[in-house]
Amino acid sequence: MNLVLLENKDFIDQSHVMIKGRRFKHLTLINKVAKNDRMVCGLLNGKVGTGLITKISNNFLEMKICFDNDPPEPLPLTLVLALPRPKMLKRIIESVTSLGVKKIYLVNSWRVEKSFWQSPLLCEDNLRKYMVLGLEQGRDTVLPKIYQKRFFTRFVKEELARIAKNSLCITAHPKTKKICPSGENKKITLVIGPEGGFIDIEVETLEKQGFSSYHIGQRILKVETAVTYLISRLYS
Amino acid sequence: MNLVLLENKDFIDQSHVMIKGRRFKHLTLINKVAKNDRMVCGLLNGKVGTGLITKISNNFLEMKICFDNDPPEPLPLTLVLALPRPKMLKRIIESVTSLGVKKIYLVNSWRVEKSFWQSPLLCEDNLRKYMVLGLEQGRDTVLPKIYQKRFFTRFVKEELARIAKNSLCITAHPKTKKICPSGENKKITLVIGPEGGFIDIEVETLEKQGFSSYHIGQRILKVETAVTYLISRLYS
Repeated sequence: MNLVLLENKDFIDQSHVMIKGRRFKHLTLINKVAKNDRMVCGLLNGKVGTGLITKISNNFLEMKICFDNDPPEPLPLTLVLALPRPKMLKRIIESVTSLGVKKIYLVNSWRVEKSFWQSPLLCEDNLRKYMVLGLEQGRDTVLPKIYQKRFFTRFVKEELARIAKNSLCITAHPKTKKICPSGENKKITLVIGPEGGFIDIEVETLEKQGFSSYHIGQRILKVETAVTYLISRLYS
Repeated sequence: MNLVLLENKDFIDQSHVMIKGRRFKHLTLINKVAKNDRMVCGLLNGKVGTGLITKISNNFLEMKICFDNDPPEPLPLTLVLALPRPKMLKRIIESVTSLGVKKIYLVNSWRVEKSFWQSPLLCEDNLRKYMVLGLEQGRDTVLPKIYQKRFFTRFVKEELARIAKNSLCITAHPKTKKICPSGENKKITLVIGPEGGFIDIEVETLEKQGFSSYHIGQRILKVETAVTYLISRLYS
């Protein structure tokens, strides 16, 4: 845990928090904190700062908190992702959150298995768990927003143009001739297909909405590798 | 499976192979191949080409093979990685293999848990399994070489200078002031520490061997995310 993410309910007075449960266990067993240690802390959707550990008992600890900094800048990226298999989705949510992505659209596509949409992971509380892990990892406080879109064509035709307005519009697609640009460092809407890729008509639907298709070389990457690879490439 | 990786023992005559077991199951259940379909194939450590499916039975299939291309260029990167937890190591081996890395040194470090070195994953056959998955994913044929180094200081002082000769020497380290360069596209030796990072004396030992330390921004990434992120950044 690189940052202790705090919520208002953790506060026992204006400048002290009490930490129990998962965070307490992680801090004592993994970070091995002791009294008078300092930890980086952050208020959910708020500032970051330092927590001085003032008390450790068997099942809780207390910290004196001082917030004095803003969280890191968000990445100006909207990620549109064909719903991956739940196990992979967990890791992707955590990693893109740690990378600073704040808007994620999970969309259907021809090659997305229907059963993926039934996964309990897609409940708000479960997704939030992996976002929180990503924030703790990346020393950030601002929860991403995740939207779920079950109808690809309707979403792309009716909503995507507005979402992607004034951004560079990119579809990652192995079967194309142009190599993905690098070091763009600006507002981007990035669409990534499922394992096996988008089918042709999906790529065309995206192209009609102004999305250019780019590959990332001869090698085909797993979706979770491709997501990190592309984000790094576009913001290098 | 984006490439069917073949070995000499799969050949039943000069141009035909018989595929059983895991690859057969994957091709029929996931790729859903049928007679007369063509698949990208490659010979382990050799050429790539096409396989025409000539026969499918209940538990094997046969293909007529024509090799006509070289595998993709290897990445001119030597990766030196503090041994990660086994579950993560599997994914890292698979992803860096799919990215074209051919030389991997797994090294000890102060913050590497001793038990990780006891993992059965570190047997050659087990590591090979994940390299093969990476080759099938990335449409490559050339197995990486993985070396295991249990003594950090001895390895860095006695072997690393020779290994890293004529390459750009980089240690990824969050607690430093220089941002990691991007788009280097040349021979690089990249050292990545464990979760929690290298301790100061380890970074100094590396610096004495010519390794400069660079961070990748305010955000701290998990090792598996950092590996892909750094490779993409250095070769964008």
